[in-house]
Amino acid sequence: MKSAKTHFKKFQYFYPYTVALVGARAGKRVNFMSCAWHTALSFEPPLFGILVSKKRYTHGIITEAREFTVNFLSFDGIKLSAQMGRKSGRDIDKVKELGVRLRPGKVLKSPLIEEAYVAFECRLAEIRPFGDHDLFVGEVLVVHEEAHTFNSDEILNPMKVRPLLYLGSDFYITIDPDTFKHVLPD
Amino acid sequence: MKSAKTHFKKFQYFYPYTVALVGARAGKRVNFMSCAWHTALSFEPPLFGILVSKKRYTHGIITEAREFTVNFLSFDGIKLSAQMGRKSGRDIDKVKELGVRLRPGKVLKSPLIEEAYVAFECRLAEIRPFGDHDLFVGEVLVVHEEAHTFNSDEILNPMKVRPLLYLGSDFYITIDPDTFKHVLPD
Repeated sequence: MKSAKTHFKKFQYFYPYTVALVGARAGKRVNFMSCAWHTALSFEPPLFGILVSKKRYTHGIITEAREFTVNFLSFDGIKLSAQMGRKSGRDIDKVKELGVRLRPGKVLKSPLIEEAYVAFECRLAEIRPFGDHDLFVGEVLVVHEEAHTFNSDEILNPMKVRPLLYLGSDFYITIDPDTFKHVLPD
Repeated sequence: MKSAKTHFKKFQYFYPYTVALVGARAGKRVNFMSCAWHTALSFEPPLFGILVSKKRYTHGIITEAREFTVNFLSFDGIKLSAQMGRKSGRDIDKVKELGVRLRPGKVLKSPLIEEAYVAFECRLAEIRPFGDHDLFVGEVLVVHEEAHTFNSDEILNPMKVRPLLYLGSDFYITIDPDTFKHVLPD
């Protein structure tokens, strides 16, 4: 039996989503934030979109840098994600104070997060406002992946990594590898 | 140890995502498709975006209807999702042939899928092309939710529902309720 609502608080019904740490280097400033609103936008060219509130410090950093990286953490990164989401780069140097290890980009000036099991280097293609957030559209130039994490078809191996999934309001969860299943339509 | 790739096949690294069945009624035609590329876009107004290839039958249906519904399935819906993703409404009446039960929308002419544990009614606000897909931006007017599935803060109760998660290329998985965790930054 379902109920129908026309007013919502936080609109968290579509979770769980993977959590991405997104950020960039602009001049001497390097900053990342936790981002749960993201999606692929196109195969060809490969475009990936992240939603960032105008209020976020990272909004200015990416806008200035014209590039960003997207970094996906395993469930072990739960504390880092919570901190990256709740603290602002205006107040602290998150990378230094949270002990985040960085690795240099292959084609971008912006670094990647070493802890990530997979990470993208994106060139900013467009910023498009939608309501109270802006969609940053990135052209994916490079994918960095931990060995044995994906198979040759780029499918995550759930025996190797359990991704950090967000449920809203600082709640997290991960996958059950035993439920991994391949299904054909017939 | 990470490797860096500059060419990808299917670009499936950011999964798992929840699977949504998206569709609409246009005149006498009702059709749904499985969609794994979606994201919230804004809190205020509440906007939800879905990516649909121009090649899809559903693309024309939603464009004509100027509205759509977004329906999230539990892991039990794995077969339905596979069928909804791989068959086209050009060839078969998916609703009839797959035995999908519909419920009427509260404000839209388009129906919802009864099996869904949560579903949105969206008025089409905008269609925006990105590469080989179009972003359909929906203003969320109504949320239908199964009783006891979400708490008062709209957080999914993982003891009540295990959402269907997509890993790409017809692979699916779901959550492990035992890993449900609330984390504060400090």
